[in-house]
Amino acid sequence: MLELWGDHLSGNCYKVEMLFHFLDIPYKFIAVDTKKKETQSLSFLAHNPNGKIPLVLLENGNSLWESNAILHYFAEGTSFLPTDSFEKAKVLQWQFFEQYSHEPYIAVARYIQFYLGLPENRKEEYESKKTGGRKALAVMESHLSKYAYFVGKQMSIADISLYAYTHVAEEGGFSLAEYPAIQAWIKRIETTPGYTKMQRN
Amino acid sequence: MLELWGDHLSGNCYKVEMLFHFLDIPYKFIAVDTKKKETQSLSFLAHNPNGKIPLVLLENGNSLWESNAILHYFAEGTSFLPTDSFEKAKVLQWQFFEQYSHEPYIAVARYIQFYLGLPENRKEEYESKKTGGRKALAVMESHLSKYAYFVGKQMSIADISLYAYTHVAEEGGFSLAEYPAIQAWIKRIETTPGYTKMQRN
Ligand SMILES: N[C@@H](CCC(=O)N[C@@H](CS)C(=O)NCC(=O)O)C(=O)O
Ligand SMILES: N[C@@H](CCC(=O)N[C@@H](CS)C(=O)NCC(=O)O)C(=O)O
Repeated sequence: MLELWGDHLSGNCYKVEMLFHFLDIPYKFIAVDTKKKETQSLSFLAHNPNGKIPLVLLENGNSLWESNAILHYFAEGTSFLPTDSFEKAKVLQWQFFEQYSHEPYIAVARYIQFYLGLPENRKEEYESKKTGGRKALAVMESHLSKYAYFVGKQMSIADISLYAYTHVAEEGGFSLAEYPAIQAWIKRIETTPGYTKMQRN
Repeated sequence: MLELWGDHLSGNCYKVEMLFHFLDIPYKFIAVDTKKKETQSLSFLAHNPNGKIPLVLLENGNSLWESNAILHYFAEGTSFLPTDSFEKAKVLQWQFFEQYSHEPYIAVARYIQFYLGLPENRKEEYESKKTGGRKALAVMESHLSKYAYFVGKQMSIADISLYAYTHVAEEGGFSLAEYPAIQAWIKRIETTPGYTKMQRN
């Protein structure tokens, strides 16, 4: 059976869970604890030499990592990935934006606050994430004040990638109150059939 | 005519130039100076609200940004992008690895050393890039000691993405002497017909 190795509270892992639920793809979840450095064990590194979750193991034993690459593999041929070349490139544009200009600020600030409890020795790094995180949210807000979704007229994996850490941005100290278009988009996603919440336990 | 807005010495822009040369795609190069903050001008932001190069303007006026998304758009249907779904996802996996685990270390160290001349107030940040950069090179070395290219049996845009900053890693203070498989792969790419050097002027 298809295996997803991850952590329910990690946005990068949750992206994959969201898509699997929307598409009704059955999978076995294998919990990996990054705080215990389980991603650095030899058995984990044999599947992903870069030592990060999410990781999927396909039924044929092949492994695939990088959240957004996993989304593409499973979204191909579904309504979550357009077939038009330009629209497909636009989905990628927003996903690379997410990994380069959004996640390194918002997810990292959330990690320091929510996972680590904002320890004194990481407060400076935490503060340094504010400007980049707000800039990413402003770029999203400006797009979403004109369009309902990031690409085309329906939800795609670009929305899933950006939703994952945006909807928990407050856990990283970013208030969404100033971003009404982002809030409306979050509601739009959360009321789509097949939507599943981030699992908290 | 197709326009590429960029800077010849930026690896992210060079990726696109490399592919255009391999595929013999004519384009007009529009030089943008990031040190003069030209990426933050209103006219630039109208095309890319995230304020970064490379940016391409297609003949129909549409804009596309994020280097790796641009590569996908132009590589589709050519030998630089496999058609098999799993291989395509593997290309993306390596490109997201590049943007998340390679570029933020190696390109940023190079920017501080090569563009800014290693100013005193950025030395600490520069030093902090060493561990991540070496880890990315080790992941590449381990793959390339078993395979000639990142995906499949020929060069793809995954190789172009990773080559761009790896071949100038020494300008960021990373010695490639310890990485023989990376060095052999660099030679393989540089001797492929259609290869074009990074323009120095
Ligand atoms: N670019 C990767 C990022 C994955 C990532 O940073 N995963 C974190 C958890 S959210 C992790 O595994 N960290 C453990 C480590 O780096 O050792 C992706 O999108 O999948
Ligand atoms: N993820 C982007 C990164 C682009 C990027 O960082 N571009 C730099 C030059 S290499 C830039 O435009 N910097 C100016 C700025 O951020 O204001 C890509 O791959 O295209």
